[in-house]
Amino acid sequence: MQYVNFDKTAAYRQLADYAASWKGFDFRAALDVDRVRKCQAIMAGGLTYSWAAKAVDDGALKLLKALADEQELIAKYKALLDGEVMNTGEKRKVLHQLSRGEQGQPVVENGKNIGEFYRGELRRFCEFSEHVHSGKLKGATGRAFTTVVQIGIGGSDLGPRAMYLALENWAAAGGKKKLDAKFISNVDPDDASAIMASVPLEQSLFVLVSKSGTTQETLANELFVKDKLQKAGLDSAKHVVAVTSETSPLARNPAYLDSFYIDDYIGGRYSSSSAVGGCVLSLAFGADAFKEFLAGAANADRLALEPDILKNAALLDALIGVWERNFLGYPYTAVLPYSQALSRFPAHLQQLDMESNGKRVNRSGEPIAYNTGPVVFGEPGTNGQHSFYQLLHQGTSAVPLQFIGFAESQRGDDVTVDGSVSQTKLKANLAAQIVAFAKGQTDADLNRDFPGGRPSSLIWGKRLDPAALGSLLAHYENKVMFQGFVWNINSFDQEGVQLGKILTKKVLAGNSGDSALDEYSRILGV
Amino acid sequence: MQYVNFDKTAAYRQLADYAASWKGFDFRAALDVDRVRKCQAIMAGGLTYSWAAKAVDDGALKLLKALADEQELIAKYKALLDGEVMNTGEKRKVLHQLSRGEQGQPVVENGKNIGEFYRGELRRFCEFSEHVHSGKLKGATGRAFTTVVQIGIGGSDLGPRAMYLALENWAAAGGKKKLDAKFISNVDPDDASAIMASVPLEQSLFVLVSKSGTTQETLANELFVKDKLQKAGLDSAKHVVAVTSETSPLARNPAYLDSFYIDDYIGGRYSSSSAVGGCVLSLAFGADAFKEFLAGAANADRLALEPDILKNAALLDALIGVWERNFLGYPYTAVLPYSQALSRFPAHLQQLDMESNGKRVNRSGEPIAYNTGPVVFGEPGTNGQHSFYQLLHQGTSAVPLQFIGFAESQRGDDVTVDGSVSQTKLKANLAAQIVAFAKGQTDADLNRDFPGGRPSSLIWGKRLDPAALGSLLAHYENKVMFQGFVWNINSFDQEGVQLGKILTKKVLAGNSGDSALDEYSRILGV
Repeated sequence: MQYVNFDKTAAYRQLADYAASWKGFDFRAALDVDRVRKCQAIMAGGLTYSWAAKAVDDGALKLLKALADEQELIAKYKALLDGEVMNTGEKRKVLHQLSRGEQGQPVVENGKNIGEFYRGELRRFCEFSEHVHSGKLKGATGRAFTTVVQIGIGGSDLGPRAMYLALENWAAAGGKKKLDAKFISNVDPDDASAIMASVPLEQSLFVLVSKSGTTQETLANELFVKDKLQKAGLDSAKHVVAVTSETSPLARNPAYLDSFYIDDYIGGRYSSSSAVGGCVLSLAFGADAFKEFLAGAANADRLALEPDILKNAALLDALIGVWERNFLGYPYTAVLPYSQALSRFPAHLQQLDMESNGKRVNRSGEPIAYNTGPVVFGEPGTNGQHSFYQLLHQGTSAVPLQFIGFAESQRGDDVTVDGSVSQTKLKANLAAQIVAFAKGQTDADLNRDFPGGRPSSLIWGKRLDPAALGSLLAHYENKVMFQGFVWNINSFDQEGVQLGKILTKKVLAGNSGDSALDEYSRILGV
Repeated sequence: MQYVNFDKTAAYRQLADYAASWKGFDFRAALDVDRVRKCQAIMAGGLTYSWAAKAVDDGALKLLKALADEQELIAKYKALLDGEVMNTGEKRKVLHQLSRGEQGQPVVENGKNIGEFYRGELRRFCEFSEHVHSGKLKGATGRAFTTVVQIGIGGSDLGPRAMYLALENWAAAGGKKKLDAKFISNVDPDDASAIMASVPLEQSLFVLVSKSGTTQETLANELFVKDKLQKAGLDSAKHVVAVTSETSPLARNPAYLDSFYIDDYIGGRYSSSSAVGGCVLSLAFGADAFKEFLAGAANADRLALEPDILKNAALLDALIGVWERNFLGYPYTAVLPYSQALSRFPAHLQQLDMESNGKRVNRSGEPIAYNTGPVVFGEPGTNGQHSFYQLLHQGTSAVPLQFIGFAESQRGDDVTVDGSVSQTKLKANLAAQIVAFAKGQTDADLNRDFPGGRPSSLIWGKRLDPAALGSLLAHYENKVMFQGFVWNINSFDQEGVQLGKILTKKVLAGNSGDSALDEYSRILGV
């Protein structure tokens, strides 16, 4: 395998040439029933990826296929699955896919089978959650747990929180909701204080998540929580479990009811399918639901091995994203789920994508001369339609869009108004927006003229359930991974978070060594 | 007054020339204690705007001042306050500032003093909220109201919801929380269904907000709510109030307990300080808190009349934003509040800015050849530090940043860890990030090298209370307004939302007339 900067590939030059003579994609002529039917790729979990409304033609696809071959995207994915050190900066394997299924060779290190380790932890936290549900495990005063509170930040918060919200109504409607979940993340004390005031302490179980066991915010919030438990006369060792690495100060610590382990081969933003997400999700919805979620993700990982780009949704989505970012020049992309359950899914994708691919050096630490990951943002539809869609339709810059939708609601509770239920209105809006963005509408009043030409993709399924959610999560993880391979960057480290941490420590220690920083600290009252 | 396209002004050409020889701003040399002390403008509500870490020098500021003069920004603002028709597309006055104070001439139309009308409605809904709090008004079964549920979408949701969340902990800590508030917005039936399952129906008061009385989502959700009330045997006429215009089908309708009025001169995204936000906020926190919020906004509106750009934070913020958008070429900006209470404030600003200034024709409906409003996104710090900040620090594209922070937390409930309370850690992080983004850090390992040069502003205050929040809200409204004047666009209409509505209606009526749209509808199961 070769690791080559994107702009040194033959495909890059061919795509650049192709883009130079690109006159835009004529959606008004080309986007018809045949294109919608043809431009689909089957995903796992009952989902389908539609790229009919993306600005790609057969010529661009042919070159993107050549790019996939030349950058050996599938071979690199296989190497990652087999345990090659793909996190080059931190010299680590990248094994989040292994937390949900074994798609490659067994990964063994110093005699330890890492897949077995992950499966063992899965068994342990599933069993733990069953003991909580059965009442075998109770709080310090003997009362059953009704609430789980995750304490974590970044990947220990955004993904698990988004997954919880995505399945909360599914679980409630199906009688599968076991515990309420809440999340404490910010070092802003109002976050922990408000959550602690809202939960029944005696019946609350806290999941403390920090891989390193040294995250400033999470340790501060741990103490915040323990202080409240102590003041309520509750033994925190009966109310707090840890999710951490085996080498962290939190590991095998009698201060916790139990500990579940991950390792350095699962990055925070890729950890929803590990104990980081699994512990809270199993507690909230039961181990079976979490295993269905893992199965959906594992099936998506398997489909991502398909070399035909037209049959590999994650690969195709990645390549079209590269076409948009590097050749059509779009610096951002919006994620627009027509599903209230996915209200925080865009925030998770924002971390996943921007933290993974917001890089300016290649995987060997050398500078690169092309754009990498875009800015990602989004809100659920139809809410966004009444908000920022104005700019998306009629702003001076176009934004590529990623729609997500489902045939059925999660709760199955609906009302008929003007001849249709709300779920039908939701879907009609989604279909209408795709076509409105692509085709626009000519009007002599330019204030009512819509240029169209705003490209979008659509992922849709029957209903958002654990398997569909696992598939959706893995789709984006794999998309981001493939884009990182194209760009020849390391999508698995995050050195960009370090400088702020270092300066913060200096400020708190009173020796910032920078007069502006001292003055900012002074005016803020640090 | 003259209305001139931005690129036809002398200031535009001078700024373009200046930018052509711009070599970047050397933060490492220039950002010191003196610059931080000098580059501040006092705002209302105890806030201060700092632009020390923005990439502007005296030369740029001089030209931006000339731009403010040439485009007559203050004169146009005064004309708006005096009731001139500034929403040219819809031929309407723009009077949201009047909902919180009278800064200009009295606005009288057909013998009606509009300021008096707004003040009258304010009195009415404040009195209504007092009757709810005193128990004079009760639910259908005679039980006191404990919960208010706002039904609205877009501006009837995002702003009021962001304001509620911003003050919830302030109110709880000060004993001023009167009612819990919840919000139903999306036409996704899971939204209304989940909220309705979570509130005590007998003790819930619903505020139905639609200016036109014809918003598809809001009417569907109204029926959803009424259906649940009816099934619970509750008279909806004793549980629902309307906020609407006097000409809407919802006005003076015996189906509602009461109705409060706005008019077409307050756009949805500017309506938080009208009955749209005032009704729910007065019910949640009491009329006095809402009036303090209005006073903060009114003081900000007054300060925005100041012609000296260095003493007018909204004007200066607007001009620096234009410099960044049109001359430094940034297509986006991030809003980063170091305050969990402002968790949804970026979503409100996203609507405010992108719906107002995401325009491609001037105020007369003629095409323009320069960029207008940027993409706006953001999440609270420190959460964002563990998420998308990687791209902000080390991505291939820089993103201008807008920080917000406060000396004190709202709840005053904190814990000391490693010698500092969490609020101090929060502020130390904020100060550190400003300097890290601006100055970066050179490292021989390029993966650990931070280029710096990422510009940011900071708005800070002592504590987020109603007056500070009102000031903050009005600051951004006025900033967006001034930018619209610079760009010679109409910041007060939103024709870009119409095409999707029209196509949705066609889909629901079964005659879309577009084969692709029909196929999208078919696969989604419309």
